Amino acid sequence: MTNPLHKELAHLLGDRFTISDYERQQHGQDESALPPMLPDAVCFALTTEEVATIVKLCAQHQTPVIPFGAGSSLEGHVFAPHGGITIDLSRMDKILRVSADDLDCTVQAGVTRQQLDQHLRQQGMFFPVDPGADATFGGMASTRASGTTAVRYGTMSDNVLALTVVLPNGQTIQTGTRARKSSAGYDLTHLFIGSEGTLGIITEVTLKLQGIPEAISAAVVGFADLDTAVKAVTEIRQSGIPVARIEFLDDVMVQAINQFANLNLPEQPTLFFEFHGSNNTVQESAKLAAEITHAWSGSDFQWATDIGERNALWKARHNAYFAGLAFRPGSRSLTTDVCVPISQLADCIIQTKADIDASGLTAPIVGHVGDGNFHLLLLVDPNKPDDLTKAAQLSERLVKRALTMGGTITGEHGVGLGKMKYMKAQHGEEALAVMHAIKQALDPQNLMNPGKMLPPLE
Amino acid sequence: MTNPLHKELAHLLGDRFTISDYERQQHGQDESALPPMLPDAVCFALTTEEVATIVKLCAQHQTPVIPFGAGSSLEGHVFAPHGGITIDLSRMDKILRVSADDLDCTVQAGVTRQQLDQHLRQQGMFFPVDPGADATFGGMASTRASGTTAVRYGTMSDNVLALTVVLPNGQTIQTGTRARKSSAGYDLTHLFIGSEGTLGIITEVTLKLQGIPEAISAAVVGFADLDTAVKAVTEIRQSGIPVARIEFLDDVMVQAINQFANLNLPEQPTLFFEFHGSNNTVQESAKLAAEITHAWSGSDFQWATDIGERNALWKARHNAYFAGLAFRPGSRSLTTDVCVPISQLADCIIQTKADIDASGLTAPIVGHVGDGNFHLLLLVDPNKPDDLTKAAQLSERLVKRALTMGGTITGEHGVGLGKMKYMKAQHGEEALAVMHAIKQALDPQNLMNPGKMLPPLE
Repeated sequence: MTNPLHKELAHLLGDRFTISDYERQQHGQDESALPPMLPDAVCFALTTEEVATIVKLCAQHQTPVIPFGAGSSLEGHVFAPHGGITIDLSRMDKILRVSADDLDCTVQAGVTRQQLDQHLRQQGMFFPVDPGADATFGGMASTRASGTTAVRYGTMSDNVLALTVVLPNGQTIQTGTRARKSSAGYDLTHLFIGSEGTLGIITEVTLKLQGIPEAISAAVVGFADLDTAVKAVTEIRQSGIPVARIEFLDDVMVQAINQFANLNLPEQPTLFFEFHGSNNTVQESAKLAAEITHAWSGSDFQWATDIGERNALWKARHNAYFAGLAFRPGSRSLTTDVCVPISQLADCIIQTKADIDASGLTAPIVGHVGDGNFHLLLLVDPNKPDDLTKAAQLSERLVKRALTMGGTITGEHGVGLGKMKYMKAQHGEEALAVMHAIKQALDPQNLMNPGKMLPPLE
Repeated sequence: MTNPLHKELAHLLGDRFTISDYERQQHGQDESALPPMLPDAVCFALTTEEVATIVKLCAQHQTPVIPFGAGSSLEGHVFAPHGGITIDLSRMDKILRVSADDLDCTVQAGVTRQQLDQHLRQQGMFFPVDPGADATFGGMASTRASGTTAVRYGTMSDNVLALTVVLPNGQTIQTGTRARKSSAGYDLTHLFIGSEGTLGIITEVTLKLQGIPEAISAAVVGFADLDTAVKAVTEIRQSGIPVARIEFLDDVMVQAINQFANLNLPEQPTLFFEFHGSNNTVQESAKLAAEITHAWSGSDFQWATDIGERNALWKARHNAYFAGLAFRPGSRSLTTDVCVPISQLADCIIQTKADIDASGLTAPIVGHVGDGNFHLLLLVDPNKPDDLTKAAQLSERLVKRALTMGGTITGEHGVGLGKMKYMKAQHGEEALAVMHAIKQALDPQNLMNPGKMLPPLE
C-alpha cells in the first residue's frame, strides 16, 4: 500500500478499510442501468467520529468522498466517477433512542427502514416513508425519498426533525432539535435532505413517528381506462377522505405482478387503496372512496381485510420493481420517475403510454397517484444496445413532458448522475447558480460526492 | 432630493417612493416592544420586476434592502438598524391562480391570509396556517410562521410548494414547481422559508390548499392543573385521533380572554379542541378525546357546535394577544415563544409559571400544545424601565430552559433582532458558520435585511 491516504485510513480502521476489487465493485454500482464506476477504496465506519476523521483525512489529501448506504439508489448516486474513498455507513446500524411520548426517534444513518419498522411495531409505532428498497435512513434522507404513503404522511422532507452531519471540513453539526417546529435561522435540515452527499455526510437522523392506527383496510379497484382512474383519485383528494395510500398500476404492471406474486387481478388500470384510522373512520372512508370510484365506473372494491391478504397485496406492490424485471427474464430496468400536478397526471401517463407503445419497448408503470408521481420500468435487453438507446430517449421525452406540464424531473429517485443533464431545464440558470454558490461555499474543494447532481455552469 | 439612489427610485416609482417621516416611522416598527429603527426611504412595489429593479439599484448603491409585509412581526424583523430602503410588498395583493383540481394556488407576497381565506371559502377550500395576525404570505413564508392548526396541517414549512424570489443580485428565480414532491437538487424553497429576507425577497408564493371538511366541531375542557392537561394531550396524540387544533390557555390567559371577549370560561388551565372531518369522524374523534381528557380529570367537554359559537371561541383565542394587552390597560407586551419536545412541555410551562410568579410580572400563557410550542405575553408598563428589564431576563431564562430541554429558541415568531443573541447557543458555532457561509455566498455585500438573524461570528 503506497498511497499515503490509504495507509492512514488502514491505520485508523484496520480491516474496515479495503482496496479489494470485490468491495470496490460492490460499492461502484447501484440499481440503475448505468455502467459501474469504482472507488479507489472502501471504508466501513462505525461512528460519526470515525466519519469525521475519514472526511478530514480525505480533505487533507484532496480526495473525493462518497457516502454509501444500501446501494439501492437508481441514478448512480453512489458511483465514483472521480475515484476516491467510499464511506460505507451500513454498519452504523444502531437505533439510538425512541420516545413514545414524543413520537420520535434517532437512528444512525445505516439503520434500514425495515429494521426500524420491526423495532417500532412492538411499541405500537411506525415510520411511514417506504421507498421500494430496504434503504438506509442516511440514503433516504440524502435522496429525499418517499414511497406509497406520502399522500397521507409526506416524504422524508416532512418526516425528519434533525440530522447529524459531517461537513466537508470534518466538523460535525446538528441541523435541528427535537422540537416539532422552529423558526430559528436557515433550515439546514432541509438543505441536507436531498443533497445526495454533495454537501456533507448524514450520520444520524431524528425521525417523526406515527402511532399504529387501530384499523387498516386495503382495497383494489379496476378501471376501463386510466383517465377515469385519475379522475376518481382527484375527486377523492378534494373530498378530504383520509387515504393512507393510493397507488396506480397500469395493465402491464398488473400482468407483471400477477405473474410474479401469483395473484389474479383483472389486467386493467388499477388503483390500490389503503385506509388508516379507527374502525369507524376506516369503514366510512372506504365507503366514500368506493362511492366515488363507482361513480367513475370503477369495479367493485375488492377487499383485503385480513392482515395476511393485505400484506400479500402490498408486498406485491412493493416488489413491483422485481416483478417488472421478471416480466422480461434477463432484462435490466432503466427506472425513471417524474412528478406532475395531479391535474396533468392522466394526460402525462396517456402520452407516455402512447410513446412506450410506439417505441416497441415493454415498460410497466406504477405510480403514487395521490402525489402525481409515477415510475416507468423501461425493460431493456442488455445484449441489445438499441434497447438502451430507445429507453434513454423515451426517458428524456418523459422528463421534458413533465417539465412542460409544470412538474419535476424526479419525484423521489433523485438526480445522481442520471438526471444531472436536466437540472438546468428544471431550475433555470439563475437558480442553478444559487445551488452552485451553496456547494462552493460549503465544499470549496469539491470533494463531497463530486460529479453528481449539479451540472457544470456554462 | 440629493441622494442619487433616492432620485433613481423616485424616477422609477413616482409617488410609490417616499422619504416621509410618517411612512418611515410606520415601516420602522412592528408588534414587538423593541424601540423603532427607521429606514431612509420606503418603496411600494407592485410587481416582481419592480422589486428586482429596486434590489439591483440598491446593490449598485450598496444600500440595505428590507422587505415589509403587514408589519406584524414580533422580533424586529422589519427594522432598519443600518438604514436603507424598505420595500413594502402589501400592494402586491393579487391572487394569481387557484386550482381546485390540484388543491394549490399562487399569490403575490402581499396577499394576507384573511384575504385568501375569503376568496377560497367560496370555492370550498381553505389554507390552514393561521398566525395570530392577518399577516401577508411573504411575511409568513419569510418567518416560517405557523399557528393553531400546525398539529394537523403543519406550518409554512409544510404548506409551500414553490416561491418566486428576487436574489440579492436582482435576478429572479423559481424555487420549485407545482409538483407535490421533488428530489431534484437542493431544496431552495425551504432555504428561503424562514430566511427573514436575509437571502432575497419573496415576491410570489405557491401554496398547498385543503378542502373544507364536511364537519367541524369545537370543545373546551378545563383541568385542575397544567400537568394533567398536557398528559391528556400526549395521550391524544399517541392515539392518533385526528385533532385539527389543540390549544392551551393558562388560568391567567383565560381570565384575560373572558374579560376581553365577554366569555365566562372557568378560570383554570384549559384546552381548546377542534376536530375536522366527516360528521362521523368528527363525532368519533371528539368522543375519544373526551374519554381521554375525562380520564385525566378534565371537565366535561363544553361544546361549541354551531358556527357562531365556534367562531366566537376561536376569535377569542386568536385575539389572545390583544386580550393580554387589555388585561393590563396601558401595557405593552414583550411576546416570546419557544418550542420543546412534548414530553418536556408540562415541566417547561410549570417552571416558567413559577418564574413569572417570582418576578411579580403578569404574563398570560397560550400554547399550541400539540406541537410543544407556547407563547408568553410579558406585560410591561412602558413607564417602568424595571418591568422591561425583568421581562427581558425572564424571556432569556425561558429560552435557556427550552434549549436545555432539547427545544428551540423560537417555534414560530422567528429570530429578527430580538433572538439573534441566542442563535449560537441553539445551533453551535459550526452550524452557525454554515449559515454564515450561505449568507456570504448569496449576499456577499450583506445588503439583504442586514443585522438580523445571524449574530456576527466571533
